[in-house]
Amino acid sequence: MNQPEPYPRNQWYVAAWRNEIGRTLFERRILDEPIVFYRTEAGEPVALAGLCPHRLYPLREGRLVGDRVECGYHGFTFDCTGACVDIPSQTKVPSRFATRRFPVVDRWEWTWIWMGDPALADETRIPPINSIGLGADGWRADAGVLTPLGTRFSLLLENLMDLSHVSFAHAKSLPGSTSLAAIPATISEDGEILRVDRKLPTGPLEGFGAHLHPDLAGTVCEDRIVSDYFGPALVRTGGRYIVPVSGGQTRAFNFIHGVTPETSTTTHYFNAIARNFRLDDDDLSYGVLAQMKRVIDEDVIVLNTIEAYVDRHAATEHELSCQADVGALRVRRKLAAQVAAEATLAKKIVPITPALARDGVARP
Amino acid sequence: MNQPEPYPRNQWYVAAWRNEIGRTLFERRILDEPIVFYRTEAGEPVALAGLCPHRLYPLREGRLVGDRVECGYHGFTFDCTGACVDIPSQTKVPSRFATRRFPVVDRWEWTWIWMGDPALADETRIPPINSIGLGADGWRADAGVLTPLGTRFSLLLENLMDLSHVSFAHAKSLPGSTSLAAIPATISEDGEILRVDRKLPTGPLEGFGAHLHPDLAGTVCEDRIVSDYFGPALVRTGGRYIVPVSGGQTRAFNFIHGVTPETSTTTHYFNAIARNFRLDDDDLSYGVLAQMKRVIDEDVIVLNTIEAYVDRHAATEHELSCQADVGALRVRRKLAAQVAAEATLAKKIVPITPALARDGVARP
Amino acid sequence: MNQPEPYPRNQWYVAAWRNEIGRTLFERRILDEPIVFYRTEAGEPVALAGLCPHRLYPLREGRLVGDRVECGYHGFTFDCTGACVDIPSQTKVPSRFATRRFPVVDRWEWTWIWMGDPALADETRIPPINSIGLGADGWRADAGVLTPLGTRFSLLLENLMDLSHVSFAHAKSLPGSTSLAAIPATISEDGEILRVDRKLPTGPLEGFGAHLHPDLAGTVCEDRIVSDYFGPALVRTGGRYIVPVSGGQTRAFNFIHGVTPETSTTTHYFNAIARNFRLDDDDLSYGVLAQMKRVIDEDVIVLNTIEAYVDRHAATEHELSCQADVGALRVRRKLAAQVAAEATLAKKIVPITPALARDGVARP
Repeated sequence: MNQPEPYPRNQWYVAAWRNEIGRTLFERRILDEPIVFYRTEAGEPVALAGLCPHRLYPLREGRLVGDRVECGYHGFTFDCTGACVDIPSQTKVPSRFATRRFPVVDRWEWTWIWMGDPALADETRIPPINSIGLGADGWRADAGVLTPLGTRFSLLLENLMDLSHVSFAHAKSLPGSTSLAAIPATISEDGEILRVDRKLPTGPLEGFGAHLHPDLAGTVCEDRIVSDYFGPALVRTGGRYIVPVSGGQTRAFNFIHGVTPETSTTTHYFNAIARNFRLDDDDLSYGVLAQMKRVIDEDVIVLNTIEAYVDRHAATEHELSCQADVGALRVRRKLAAQVAAEATLAKKIVPITPALARDGVARP
Repeated sequence: MNQPEPYPRNQWYVAAWRNEIGRTLFERRILDEPIVFYRTEAGEPVALAGLCPHRLYPLREGRLVGDRVECGYHGFTFDCTGACVDIPSQTKVPSRFATRRFPVVDRWEWTWIWMGDPALADETRIPPINSIGLGADGWRADAGVLTPLGTRFSLLLENLMDLSHVSFAHAKSLPGSTSLAAIPATISEDGEILRVDRKLPTGPLEGFGAHLHPDLAGTVCEDRIVSDYFGPALVRTGGRYIVPVSGGQTRAFNFIHGVTPETSTTTHYFNAIARNFRLDDDDLSYGVLAQMKRVIDEDVIVLNTIEAYVDRHAATEHELSCQADVGALRVRRKLAAQVAAEATLAKKIVPITPALARDGVARP
Repeated sequence: MNQPEPYPRNQWYVAAWRNEIGRTLFERRILDEPIVFYRTEAGEPVALAGLCPHRLYPLREGRLVGDRVECGYHGFTFDCTGACVDIPSQTKVPSRFATRRFPVVDRWEWTWIWMGDPALADETRIPPINSIGLGADGWRADAGVLTPLGTRFSLLLENLMDLSHVSFAHAKSLPGSTSLAAIPATISEDGEILRVDRKLPTGPLEGFGAHLHPDLAGTVCEDRIVSDYFGPALVRTGGRYIVPVSGGQTRAFNFIHGVTPETSTTTHYFNAIARNFRLDDDDLSYGVLAQMKRVIDEDVIVLNTIEAYVDRHAATEHELSCQADVGALRVRRKLAAQVAAEATLAKKIVPITPALARDGVARP
């Protein structure tokens, strides 16, 4: 744990709930940059640098005129590619008067943004949310909420990758989980996905598992809880992979965490749930969403409390890490490697300076 | 736009409304120095360094005893030249126990202060407020208010020198001005005064002009709007120089802006109005003052919003500037030249250290 | 007055009122380190580093289980020596998983803490509070309160060592003291104790002296007021040593000040009173405690106001000091010498790094 890490930039992040972005200018800070969002009249999402490049007034304070944004200070107007199309005080608009445009795309109920080199913004690099039940056949997905988190994103990732904390930090909201910490975890990697896997004792299904699957109550089942790291922007926990030892479909209940750095010490925390059983049971969805929010709020208190100590501590002491931290430590290394690779890439291929980016790179 | 600029110091600034300074100790921070103000029993304004040089307790917390200030912590007492005249715990008062005294002078309804080398505090260097109607025969002047501004003073100066913003930032409070931005501006310099001049279309007087001058409504008039920079401490806008093409007196309505840096990122913004017609019309004064305050409050919101982004932006990007910024950019250069000249002067003539200043220079 | 001083560490400080520490985890920041306090089931006070060394969650948020502390995040558990005795997610607990334990001891109504090298934590180095009436035969001592002070501890020490401020800063709460500032002070040192001594005019006892000692009202008495510096953690003022010139017991009323740095710019200010006369007079105690609190609150306002200016001023100017500052200036030098000596000692004897301290040094 050191000084605030630089962020991975060549990465799709959840920018907003899809329905947060519409025909009203809307600003959100992502990787410490103010971004202004809106939809074109045709419904396409647009993301531009949030400050007018003329005198830095936030474009959110301006007006949306058709598919264009007019700044509220001197009336400079930009189209949805970032090009400046009007400077009221002069007749000619030099092409250098452009602002940055960020690639954005709707996927499931989230609008995703690419904060890095636009040339690399390949939509196939969006985390495979379909595979964990968001917008997939045979699954039901439910949107949670956006929770503002007053701590650096890496602390949240580490929290999600070491579920041994559940037995203590969530002893009240998840009373059945007091023995979870003592269950050994195994670590594995499958391509870009890092998994921490805990196998609960095989036996007759009871407790929360039986609550989820009344038809299997008392049936001898395998039961596993995982944390899957799909990159800095997305983690799935739970899984709660339950399958009768006598065979049958594996039932999964996924807790899905969209993690988007807001600043070096604050984070946008999006959550959702998905399952492949009892698809029409609204009450089950509402109940679990409420419980997940209660758990999230407990984590927010823990993480916000820790954040205050991280910088100061880094200067004087080393953390002690134990076996349960192996997943979290591997995430730290992956983050560091991703940031280092981007730095190398940036040097090799294109010297992307903000000035250059503004003038040319950002336009599709 | 860079890091907070150093301030011009060899400069008269508006310190206060004349009636703010009286027989009660009154502190205001100017160029990031706390200054304590009062009037002698004879009514002369006095400005001393705001902190007792003994243990830094603010003199504002002390007592005014005759023309002297007694510190509230250990009773050190200073006269209106800054000399220490009593140390209660000892009988002798060494002459080095003095505090700084700043030249101050009342002019019109404002009390002006000189923050630089006292030897250069020539009253003829006070901006020529008489020439724009403050305290001049044939003019009526009305005092506005002091508006606290949460932004560096240079952003306010640039706002006042580029009135193309009026069409957008003040579209609601000045609805008749939407076409102003498109009117070409000419720049000229006359001695120390920098003028940005916009000539409105010549034609029958209507709108706000006709409201000001009912006797000229429909008469073909020339109509001009200017921004005059009299140095960092004073700008006049408006002018609203209206004159019938058939001849006659030029009628002027001046909006006068006293700009005094409080800290590197906050500003004391004094305003007043003056005109050379309808001198006895109180309602006209009150109405225009109210409108000016509404416009100022809109600018405060815009400028305070921008301030938050200036430092961060300076590190990563260049502003884009257009033709309408020529006046503002020239003000930037003049400010930089003034600060640079003061630095050279300070090296050449007197090595003014605070210690020296305290011991000797400040006494008249 | 310079940048925030480093603190003397090899020093006993008042950590808390004895009854603040019990069977509930309790955190206080001392020398900028969060410390968690509790008592064992046997009643012994314990002080451990306040953050769990695993992931920095404050131990105050955990649970006290018998004589052990369980962290509220992942359940790491520490005994009262700082040793880690349980990591729920693994079976073995390496010895390096220890946290720092600080020597603490109850003396009078205060619990004292040693923040420096534990090997030097000799209880005989606790300031001799017995000699000024705390817990001594023939004396009555009364506990005051803990006042949070928003200023560096050295400003409080200087305030207490220069009582000439009483005539001005406390002119309202101590109206009889207006002439105190003019009384010459003598400085003396007796071992580690630095004394500033003011002899009031010898004469018939009146005013507050006569209020304290009705039996001596009108009797010709010697009357002295002192400030005794017992090191950075403790100052006694007052003394109010009153003795009839014709002979008899010296009567003393001590105002006792426990001074504990919280951070570089905030201080825990503990107060108490003690006297060797009218031992059973509760009303006298209550009255003087109330008056002392009123005086303290006046000092808090003065010192908190000054704190805001200290750093800024240090960069540009020198303070002016007068004869009454001699005691305070000598305290400054003693503080600087103590800090310098500790730095030398630390280099010579043991290279105490936090990492080493955590692993071994802290255990008794």
